[in-house]
Parts: sequence; C-alpha cells; structure tokens
Amino acid sequence: MSVELDGNILVTGTNRGIGLDLVKMLAERTGQRSHIYACCREPEGSRAEALKELVTQYPGKITLIKLDVSNEDSVVSAVQVVSAHVGAAGLNLLINNAAVNMPERPALMSATGKQDMMLSYEINVAGPFLISKMCLPLLQKAAEIRSSDDGDNMSCRRSAIINISTLFSSIEKCPETFPMAQMVPYRTSKAALNMLTCCQAEDFKTHNILVAGLHPGWVRTDMGGEIAPLSTEESVRGMLNVMSSLSNKDSGFLLDWEGNRIPW
Amino acid sequence: MSVELDGNILVTGTNRGIGLDLVKMLAERTGQRSHIYACCREPEGSRAEALKELVTQYPGKITLIKLDVSNEDSVVSAVQVVSAHVGAAGLNLLINNAAVNMPERPALMSATGKQDMMLSYEINVAGPFLISKMCLPLLQKAAEIRSSDDGDNMSCRRSAIINISTLFSSIEKCPETFPMAQMVPYRTSKAALNMLTCCQAEDFKTHNILVAGLHPGWVRTDMGGEIAPLSTEESVRGMLNVMSSLSNKDSGFLLDWEGNRIPW
Ligand SMILES: NC(=O)c1ccc[n+]([C@@H]2O[C@H](COP(=O)([O-])OP(=O)(O)OC[C@H]3O[C@@H](n4cnc5c(N)ncnc54)[C@H](OP(=O)(O)O)[C@@H]3O)[C@@H](O)[C@H]2O)c1
Ligand SMILES: NC(=O)c1ccc[n+]([C@@H]2O[C@H](COP(=O)([O-])OP(=O)(O)OC[C@H]3O[C@@H](n4cnc5c(N)ncnc54)[C@H](OP(=O)(O)O)[C@@H]3O)[C@@H](O)[C@H]2O)c1
Repeated sequence: MSVELDGNILVTGTNRGIGLDLVKMLAERTGQRSHIYACCREPEGSRAEALKELVTQYPGKITLIKLDVSNEDSVVSAVQVVSAHVGAAGLNLLINNAAVNMPERPALMSATGKQDMMLSYEINVAGPFLISKMCLPLLQKAAEIRSSDDGDNMSCRRSAIINISTLFSSIEKCPETFPMAQMVPYRTSKAALNMLTCCQAEDFKTHNILVAGLHPGWVRTDMGGEIAPLSTEESVRGMLNVMSSLSNKDSGFLLDWEGNRIPW
Repeated sequence: MSVELDGNILVTGTNRGIGLDLVKMLAERTGQRSHIYACCREPEGSRAEALKELVTQYPGKITLIKLDVSNEDSVVSAVQVVSAHVGAAGLNLLINNAAVNMPERPALMSATGKQDMMLSYEINVAGPFLISKMCLPLLQKAAEIRSSDDGDNMSCRRSAIINISTLFSSIEKCPETFPMAQMVPYRTSKAALNMLTCCQAEDFKTHNILVAGLHPGWVRTDMGGEIAPLSTEESVRGMLNVMSSLSNKDSGFLLDWEGNRIPW
C-alpha cells in the first residue's frame, strides 16, 4: 500500500484506540516533508505512554499537543501552537477523531440522562466544530500553496477535514442498528456531526478544502469492545487508503473504511 | 376539514408562533373529551397575553403549564402537573414544538460560537429527549386504554410524539439549502432531533406509541421572518391534517405539512 498522504497533519484523541494507530501509521508511511500533530488531553500523564513511545520511535516526525476538545481555551492554545509550528505551509489535514460514547454499555435510552446528551454533543460535535473553525486559516494557507496532483482541485494532500463518524450516525440505518446498540446520545451527536460535515463541505469548497466523514468500521478499542471484528491496524490502513483517494466528488459525504458510501 | 385528534394533548413553546396557533386550532377542532396542555416559559408574563386570551376564549379546554425545556427541574415539575391532571387517561399526544435558531440572521458559520451550538442542542434536542422520557409513562397509559380506529395499531389519537423539525434538518438537502441559510447550530441540532425521532420510534413501538418528525413549512413567525410564504394558520392546518392521518408506516419518519416525506 502506498499512502500518498503527507504535509502537516493534525489528529485529535491520539493517546489510545484508533487515534493512536492513525499517528503510528501516518508516521510510518508519510514522507520526510510531513509532520504529525498528535493531540491528546494529557500528554504528560501515564495515559499517553504509548504515544510518547511513538514520538521516540519516529524522531522529528511527531509533535505532541495538549488538547481537550471540550475546552474552548484548550482548543485556542493548541491551534496557536500548531500554527506557530507549521508557519506558512499551513495545515493539510485535520482528522477529528476524539469522541465519547456515553452512558457506557448497556447504553439504553431509559438509562440515559441529559448530562450524557450534553457532554456527548460537546465533545463529538462542538469540539470538531471549534477546532475546524480555528484551523480554517491554516487549512486555507495549505490549500493556497499546494495544488492537487490529479485533475480535481480537492484532496487530503492539499487541504482537508476528516470527521470520524460511525455507521450508527445513519438515520436511514437506525431501524436496523438500534436493536443491537441504542446509544442515543452517541447516535444523535454523530448524526449532527454528519450535518456539520455537509455544512463545512459547502462552506469551505470555495477554499478548495475537502470535508468528509469516515466510519472506521467496528474496531477493537475501549469504545468498540473486545468482540469487534477489526483491529485498529486494519481499520486505520483502510481509512488511510480511502483518505488518499478522496476527491471533489466525495466532499460532503460519509464513507466507510472500505470506501463505501453510507446513507444519511 | 375534520381533525380527529382528541384526548390529552401537550404542546411546548405555545406563547407565540406556530405553537400558539397549534393550541388555538386544537382547541377549536377537537371534541369535548379533549384537553390541551399549553406549555410556555412564562405563563404569568406579558409574553403570554395571546395564550391567556385563548384560555378565556375556550373555557375548560386549555391548561397553561410553566415549562422551560432547557431546565431539567422545570421539565420534571411540568410533567408532574400534567400527570396529576390527566390521571388514568394518560397523555395521547406530545408535540415538541419549542425551539431556537441562533445566532440570529445572518446566521453564518463564521459568526457562530460554541455557545450557539450548545444552547441550540440543549433546547432543540435535550429538551424533547427529556420531556419525551418523562412523559413516557403517561403515553403508555394512553396507549393501553385506547385502540386505534383503523386496522393499524398506532395513531396520534392513541399515543404519539411529534417532534417539530425542519427541511433544514435534511443532510441530503443541505447542498441545496445551505447557500440560502447556513444556520449550522440549528441544522446540526435538528439533524440530531431526527435521529432522536427514529430512536424513539424504534424504542417505543412495543408500547404502540407512534413517533414522527414534522416540517411546518416556511412560516411567518419570529423565527421564520416576514417574507415566509405560509401563515401559521395554513401551516398548522396542514400539520393537523397530517397528524390525524399518521399510522404505523409513518413512525420513525419526517414529513412536511403536506404529508410529503423528507429524506434524511
Ligand atoms: N471503535 C469502534 O468500533 C468505532 C466505531 C465507529 C466509530 N468510531 C469512532 O472512531 C473514533 C475513535 O474511537 P476509538 O474506538 O478509538 O475510541 P476510544 O478508544 O474510546 O478513544 C477515544 C479517544 O478520544 C479521546 N477523547 C475523549 N474525549 C476527549 C476530549 N474531551 N478531548 C480530547 N480527546 C478526547 C480519548 O482520550 P482520553 O484517553 O483522554 O479519554 C481517546 O484518545 C471516535 O470518533 C469514534 O466515535 C469507533
Ligand atoms: N417558522 C418557520 O419557518 C419554521 C420552519 C421550520 C421549522 N420550524 C420549527 O417550528 C417550531 C416553532 O417555530 P416558530 O417559527 O413558531 O418559532 P418562534 O416563533 O421563534 O417561537 C418559538 C417558541 O419556542 C419557545 N421556546 C424557545 N426556547 C424555549 C425554552 N427553552 N423552553 C420553552 N419554550 C421555548 C418560545 O418561547 P419564548 O417566547 O419564551 O422564547 C416560543 O414560544 C420550531 O421547532 C421550529 O424549529 C419553524
């Protein structure tokens, strides 16, 4: 597999799960010119050990950034740090990966409270909304400097936002998927995230910034659980392949890790 | 037009706009057995004058209930009062109408902050989520007592939740509608509300409770603005017609005031 992604790449929620493997595989497979800004809530804490190992393993390739997506000041500070690092090159790819699914299993609607609804929205939607907004000038810079390699004017190499969503965000699929996992705060927040993806795609297309949603598949992580069929590596390999193939026609849509479109 | 809706009906956000006309037309057109619980934030204040006139105009038909849908204690108190009133008959129809659209015109994404996102979600989604949850025992009671008139087991006469949504909630239609009105906090919240509608429909179908979303059309209210083509009366007449015709096949879907299905 040759992942043609490169440039300056920011990923949120990278201390574990899918985010951690995104950083690892990006560090492994992108060229010398590229740099990964790996964000997590506590880069100093013991919960970031695996991430710090990656930094050592790929010297000069990864910068850890402190970021709690639910805290506006934290978002402002993180984007300032990234902005100073990337300079005139701007940011080529923003991957909004951090998310929560509450209440924990069994996630029945009857056991769900307002707090679950509000916190899920704050982290899963207001977070990506704010980060994208603050990163917009950096994404614009990158889009101005780089052109896309093929005929299309949009790509993840040039300038893009990827919002990590889920099959459970699909309202059309809800009657099928609801019986296996209710997860109302997660579902409503991710449906809202899909709408945000579509709005951002419309709003940012004049800047040649691509915006798409990606469903990683059902993946063995703290969130996905042990019986999930996909390893983080399989999921991330698939998603990076999909990202490297995205173009104009995909902006504003939701695809899975194999590149199949998921209905709203 | 003969609206066959009757029984105990709760409507939120009724001191102005579409909610006010919903109460008026329901009072006018439902039978003696029916009672309307008209909720608003300040039933004592000057902003509820028009609503209080309706109470006088239709004696014994309308009860005003104090309800701020963004306040959990207020929701609990309101549902307690309604519960005591309806007694064993339960609640036949819950119309989640109250909502906000912020920031005000021009509602550009670039001028939108986290606060707009969070407040819109709290009122437009967490509100209906909580009220529906608290009203569930009352809706169940009604569904147990009444059967539907036709072959189907679900109807708005028996037991139903109507979530007032909007065309702007449609992600599929977003590329068409975004250029005329960005309204990102409103759109994301209403897309989430559609997901809630679908989840509630799935979860409550075992109780024979119908759940559907309704788009009122573009209506001349404070929210819709003066140049909207529909009067509140036209919109409400259409929606009541649609509600009185809803059955099993409509549960979990979004329809407009003329009964046309809107894609997610
Ligand atoms: N796993 C699956 O099967 C699956 C399926 C569909 C979609 N997804 C999506 O894939 C993405 C990654 O999921 P995952 O399975 O890797 O989840 P995970 O194992 O639970 O990891 C979640 C990550 O998000 C971070 N995070 C949570 N709240 C945060 C906040 N306020 N600020 C910053 N970071 C925060 C966590 O950091 P902390 O360690 O600090 O909490 C952690 O790094 C999510 O968007 C999820 O919705 C996963
Ligand atoms: N008008 C349109 O063209 C249009 C189009 C599509 C969908 N809709 C939907 O139709 C519904 C009614 O809209 P409208 O045009 O009648 O809006 P409106 O004229 O702005 O009236 C909104 C109503 O909601 C109430 N409300 C707001 N926040 C509340 C809260 N926290 N708790 C309780 N009540 C609250 C308001 O009460 P206060 O007076 O106390 O603020 C008011 O009664 C909404 O769901 C809206 O999204 C409208």
